[in-house]
Amino acid sequence: MARIAIDLHGGDFGPSILIPACFRYFRAHPQHHGVLFGDLKECKPFIQLCPTNVEWIDAHSLGYLAHKPAQLMRREGFSSIESAFKMLCHREVDALVSAEHTGVLLVLVGKYGRLHAAINRPVLASWLPTLTGTTVMLDLGASFSASREQLLAYSAVGVGLHGQGGAVPRLSLLNVGTEFFKGPVALRQADQALKGWSNIEYRGFIEASAVFTGQSDIIVCDGFTGNSIIKASAGALDLTFALLKQRLGRGLLKPVLAWWLKRQLEAVLTKLDPRLSNGAMVAGSELLVLKSHGNAKARAFVSAIERAVSAQELNVTRQIRIELDKLAED
Amino acid sequence: MARIAIDLHGGDFGPSILIPACFRYFRAHPQHHGVLFGDLKECKPFIQLCPTNVEWIDAHSLGYLAHKPAQLMRREGFSSIESAFKMLCHREVDALVSAEHTGVLLVLVGKYGRLHAAINRPVLASWLPTLTGTTVMLDLGASFSASREQLLAYSAVGVGLHGQGGAVPRLSLLNVGTEFFKGPVALRQADQALKGWSNIEYRGFIEASAVFTGQSDIIVCDGFTGNSIIKASAGALDLTFALLKQRLGRGLLKPVLAWWLKRQLEAVLTKLDPRLSNGAMVAGSELLVLKSHGNAKARAFVSAIERAVSAQELNVTRQIRIELDKLAED
Repeated sequence: MARIAIDLHGGDFGPSILIPACFRYFRAHPQHHGVLFGDLKECKPFIQLCPTNVEWIDAHSLGYLAHKPAQLMRREGFSSIESAFKMLCHREVDALVSAEHTGVLLVLVGKYGRLHAAINRPVLASWLPTLTGTTVMLDLGASFSASREQLLAYSAVGVGLHGQGGAVPRLSLLNVGTEFFKGPVALRQADQALKGWSNIEYRGFIEASAVFTGQSDIIVCDGFTGNSIIKASAGALDLTFALLKQRLGRGLLKPVLAWWLKRQLEAVLTKLDPRLSNGAMVAGSELLVLKSHGNAKARAFVSAIERAVSAQELNVTRQIRIELDKLAED
Repeated sequence: MARIAIDLHGGDFGPSILIPACFRYFRAHPQHHGVLFGDLKECKPFIQLCPTNVEWIDAHSLGYLAHKPAQLMRREGFSSIESAFKMLCHREVDALVSAEHTGVLLVLVGKYGRLHAAINRPVLASWLPTLTGTTVMLDLGASFSASREQLLAYSAVGVGLHGQGGAVPRLSLLNVGTEFFKGPVALRQADQALKGWSNIEYRGFIEASAVFTGQSDIIVCDGFTGNSIIKASAGALDLTFALLKQRLGRGLLKPVLAWWLKRQLEAVLTKLDPRLSNGAMVAGSELLVLKSHGNAKARAFVSAIERAVSAQELNVTRQIRIELDKLAED
């Protein structure tokens, strides 16, 4: 049984989209418990439809402060996201799901959690679809660059996130080329260090074209690059789909054929689209925090809740701590 | 009439793939002239099939030195790529096309060309397909990071590369978010400076998901990110195609339908694939140098030759110099 706190005010859509998603999830999973943080006035139309395993806590939106995350450190706040963080740090819930800005989540993890000594800043990690399954990729945007030490800490977090299956995970560093002499110095130093790790099958550098092939279980990079890779891939898929639609529009083809092709494509693109495989972990502290995309609609938001539950059941924060402890000892 | 030098030894495939591509291009374009640099022993089977507007210069492969570009500065070399560079800097040819490693081309541009004072290192720029046409993107991997000054120099190069059409180009900086306060300090400083440029329609920050939408004519970023974006997009397209093939393999569907879908997709993917829209400019000096992908086959290599001819006809090196002059005056 997992107790999941959900912030209804982060993201682009707010309670009217997120509440039905939560209801759907918790109705289908009566063994879990949801605690929704939102403005009761806005949520009123939904309250009487609420499943019995969901409770409400009245809290307002973060408002303009979402753009000034640094100010959150210096005040005692009662917004939905801050109230949820307080409950999480008092262990009254097991995990938190929010579509709030990354910057806000990073500040609040620093305020309410304790960062592990081996990592100087939280890292954003997610599971990407590949040809053969999924791969853990990090950092996806918590930092803009990464030193040797950060890349090694990300690697440890990646191992902790992956390390349930028993098999030794294959880990790669993302670079502009696969040869050992390529790339910035921090990457080459981390490459040297990772060669000595016995808990992974270290695969050296990979290029961004190989992210989706499934040849690595864990891919480590700086946050600016990781963020850009995810978004560029989504953009490339959008473009593919748009051009195919244009092409199908050009006479000749029977509408039924076009309809059929659209269905085939949608099935594939749904599997691929990083926006639908939603829910990135803000990792590095003892708090289990999942970030949903700001523009996640109901289906994608449910995927973030599922990840929170799964991460709680697998105790990934403990796994990550164990791996970061090992790194700190070295 | 353009005189194009072609290095037959760069890239993964060598003369046997590149020569037929050159023959095809120069046969179809008798007004242009090709100068092929390659080992005559290896090229022998082709020489008697040679069109009259193509000549040969005997030169060997760069060999192991391709992995040690810095050594090229200190020696007098006669490899195919070095011989071609010498001819280019003596103005005996107008442009050079090579699939050699980026590092080698950067060193040789520095050795045989004169970098403009407003740019401290060459920049790799290319034209990407978008929903509505093409967009110029740079840097694609000549440097690993970019200061404010580099980002502004890239912007000037981008304007020079674009600036033929008459319309004021829309320029964007790539960032992890569109809000002005997002991202690393160099990007935010460049953002401030670009607001004062009168020769562009400055559009602020864009995210990587918008690279292919056609909302910008010029997209500026650091080389590590640019390189990763191109490769990740190509990887995402590969994955889409592979998954569709898997899906079509699953019974039920008539083979003819599968064949038809494959044709539609290939047409679209061919238009999109950054590997086929081949030929990146190594810009920043007075030399017109086009880099082909190392794994370019005949069709893609022809696309790089076409770009070299087009860039020569439009005198883009002069346009770029004019824009960099303006930047240096500010």
